[in-house]
Amino acid sequence: MAKEKEVPLYIKMDEADNVAVVGKDGGLPAGTVFDCGLTLLEHVPQGHKAALVDIKKGEAIVRYGEVIGLAAKDIKQGSWVEESLVELPTAPELDELPLAIKVPQTLPPLEGYTFEGYRNADGSVSTKNLLGISTSVQCVAGVLNYAVKRIKEELLPKYPNVDDVVALNHAYGCGVAINAPEAVVPIRLVKNLALHPNFGGEVLVVGLGCEKLLPERVTKDKNNIISLQDYQGFDSMVQKIMAEAEMRLKRLNKRTRVTCPVADLVIGLQCGGSDALSGVTANPSVGYAADLLVRAGATVMFSEVTEVRDAVHLLTPRVANEQVGRDLIREMKWYDRYLELGEVDRSANTTPGNKKGGLANIVEKAMGSIAKSGKSAIVEVLRPGERPTKKGLIYAATPASDFVCGTCQLASGIHLQVFTTGRGTPYGLSVAPVIKVGTRNSLKQQWPDLIDVNAGSIAAGETTIEEVGWEIFRLIVDVASGRKETWADHWGLYNDLCLFNPAPIT
Amino acid sequence: MAKEKEVPLYIKMDEADNVAVVGKDGGLPAGTVFDCGLTLLEHVPQGHKAALVDIKKGEAIVRYGEVIGLAAKDIKQGSWVEESLVELPTAPELDELPLAIKVPQTLPPLEGYTFEGYRNADGSVSTKNLLGISTSVQCVAGVLNYAVKRIKEELLPKYPNVDDVVALNHAYGCGVAINAPEAVVPIRLVKNLALHPNFGGEVLVVGLGCEKLLPERVTKDKNNIISLQDYQGFDSMVQKIMAEAEMRLKRLNKRTRVTCPVADLVIGLQCGGSDALSGVTANPSVGYAADLLVRAGATVMFSEVTEVRDAVHLLTPRVANEQVGRDLIREMKWYDRYLELGEVDRSANTTPGNKKGGLANIVEKAMGSIAKSGKSAIVEVLRPGERPTKKGLIYAATPASDFVCGTCQLASGIHLQVFTTGRGTPYGLSVAPVIKVGTRNSLKQQWPDLIDVNAGSIAAGETTIEEVGWEIFRLIVDVASGRKETWADHWGLYNDLCLFNPAPIT
Repeated sequence: MAKEKEVPLYIKMDEADNVAVVGKDGGLPAGTVFDCGLTLLEHVPQGHKAALVDIKKGEAIVRYGEVIGLAAKDIKQGSWVEESLVELPTAPELDELPLAIKVPQTLPPLEGYTFEGYRNADGSVSTKNLLGISTSVQCVAGVLNYAVKRIKEELLPKYPNVDDVVALNHAYGCGVAINAPEAVVPIRLVKNLALHPNFGGEVLVVGLGCEKLLPERVTKDKNNIISLQDYQGFDSMVQKIMAEAEMRLKRLNKRTRVTCPVADLVIGLQCGGSDALSGVTANPSVGYAADLLVRAGATVMFSEVTEVRDAVHLLTPRVANEQVGRDLIREMKWYDRYLELGEVDRSANTTPGNKKGGLANIVEKAMGSIAKSGKSAIVEVLRPGERPTKKGLIYAATPASDFVCGTCQLASGIHLQVFTTGRGTPYGLSVAPVIKVGTRNSLKQQWPDLIDVNAGSIAAGETTIEEVGWEIFRLIVDVASGRKETWADHWGLYNDLCLFNPAPIT
Repeated sequence: MAKEKEVPLYIKMDEADNVAVVGKDGGLPAGTVFDCGLTLLEHVPQGHKAALVDIKKGEAIVRYGEVIGLAAKDIKQGSWVEESLVELPTAPELDELPLAIKVPQTLPPLEGYTFEGYRNADGSVSTKNLLGISTSVQCVAGVLNYAVKRIKEELLPKYPNVDDVVALNHAYGCGVAINAPEAVVPIRLVKNLALHPNFGGEVLVVGLGCEKLLPERVTKDKNNIISLQDYQGFDSMVQKIMAEAEMRLKRLNKRTRVTCPVADLVIGLQCGGSDALSGVTANPSVGYAADLLVRAGATVMFSEVTEVRDAVHLLTPRVANEQVGRDLIREMKWYDRYLELGEVDRSANTTPGNKKGGLANIVEKAMGSIAKSGKSAIVEVLRPGERPTKKGLIYAATPASDFVCGTCQLASGIHLQVFTTGRGTPYGLSVAPVIKVGTRNSLKQQWPDLIDVNAGSIAAGETTIEEVGWEIFRLIVDVASGRKETWADHWGLYNDLCLFNPAPIT
């Protein structure tokens, strides 16, 4: 539903900006004259920046009202400010950040919004009704996959209220330094994944018997553990897994959807394959939807440490109290050191696709990335894979890698993820639905059956951030209710679980 | 075919040993009197050690003629030398090792042994006829899995000479520090996996388009690359993958097995879920088979740095020349440092299962582990995933993690793996057959349809190392020829590819 608005020729995010981004599909040619009188000296591709004024070598390049870099040489007004012209500034000094000095006022409550979910015994909810079969070690993957294939073929059709059976295979569990300080991270992930709310409280863990990550560390109830070394021959292992699965399928099959407040939802936000329009269209729309969710009482997580690091000075004033601020800085410092041990820094984040999409560096990427967080106070900070204890906006520290962040957010218990993309990715998660939001009209045109929401219409002036934000919010409610299906779920496109393991393997 | 021999009551590996291992299933009770007059003071479980003499606190505990630890307190003759009594000695000092001072003489050639394999255009051979579809990034896993399911259902039945279609999904490719010094390791693994000889020279790489590991770095020929971002909608991606797959299936289908010398084989050796009998039964048998393979001119790789580290002083004299020795020490040093960065050391290797199986520590485990290498000279040392340039016995440095070692050895081009296990694992690889050799009669009895060769008969005195060694050699030839099937292939039990990535993710 395109509206009768003028297509803006460029997008300036803040009064202080000395660069602006070209929103038009295909970019704009040399000689283009803007309303303000500026003339382009050369072709500027879509998503890339044009200099609004002359910028001298060493002067700040400003976008979002923030310094995204320093000019590597003199840049003429109307030039294309391409990547090589933007020198990376130093990252914000973590020990000098102001904490909780601009805590946003509580946004006005949004009442009466509900969805149709499954109610779990512990009070949590499910957005899918899944049988999840966890593993304590990769060694069992072959046997479990064999059993799950048979469960899907022979048992699942008898239990039509169950959506699917998911094998939680991963690369951890043995051949790892289980007592290394950082081994707490992958162990927490495996434990919390086994307890995902979309499994309806049913736990089943398949282990081997001699692995380092003992299945008893994943679940305390021995009745939920199958250790393959306890069984006589292959068939008895498969029969045991199938029998335990069927007991759980029977119980899960009795569940029906009931009306639940949106406040019960835990929603994860992520971006992947970003471009310069991510921070203009998709991410601000998701930020608007995040505010709607927070106003409705839900829990919303944003993540990706290396994409927040350079914008952290904009987040620490927003934390609900100083402790939350210290927790946020703790996570930034942890990641700084982790990267340093590998002899890299946060500049290792940006991809060829980011740069092709107009993002000059990690600072510009970070400014766009944090737009997903909306405008509310940050009430809690989680280590990778930790479960939230509060409702509202939460910073869940994770790597920025799409599939690793997704796995961490699943461990943190998200019911659904909203994923923004500029370059385009078929990304999906088997445990929770993923709504994909595209940054450009051309992406939606190219991938109509993979992108769920088109925020590109904002850059084209056809819709507003508010309109797309509401569209995302409504789609979250519909998908969480099982009334609408994401494209990833429609095709069954699921990425592997990729655990974050910062400890050595042996 | 049990023979009429006395069941030995304990197994002493070397004249100098002051401990011996109980081989009997179920162990031996207190009061058992041995031929030599020794009486057990307490029950000693199978695979565990009994003290042959009084050992004073601080004195060396000797097995395989090597110091495996120091007595933590006085140990009486006839006692169970359990784990807590064995203090870890320091690891061999890497800068003081003798290099190539006891290079074994070339073993007598074993001529006339052949197998039925597929001959590749580059002169290498295949033991399976597989269509391998590689990936440059995890992002594409969902689409590729969807396409591979359809290829298997709709296309593969038309090409009966092709054994299977394998999707080489992995956790690498984006969200990683691609320029970190250690990123060379996972990149090498992805590149060399795509070129595995069992894919018959057919290369196909599915990428996304914006990932850090550009598909052009995996394969140079653009005709072998499908970048999903180049396609209009989901169906066109799937159609393209299927069309490219079918072109290759047609070519692969024309291949037939021909007689090839055993010298063309590249065999990987590994152990997992080891116990104290691993070094007595299964690993020496595999070592015997390794010598047969080397004598027949084949290439044989042993691996697992943390399981070699404490026995490296026994390997450096055996290297073919000083350069090979320096390469071996380079890999040990690399891993020492890698573990140190994670604040652990090689003692992090041993598992609860190892200890239950009688292995007190990593030194004892290492002594058993290197028995797989047989008696020939070590002619080359490979970094993780490197391709060999020589025939004969090669040390391919890898982590000891079963699935990570397997992935590394596949990248190094093994046609088949021999895997010894004491505790038992259903481990398997989709790209190359895995022959599993058990250390105990009781394991073969428990898992008759998962363990391919029982070396436990050696501990029971029913067979010899030589006999089991020949059994393994003959089974390698039969499996490589497609005449016999491993249990893992029979059931289709395959572990995931787990890349070794010592560099940070972002």
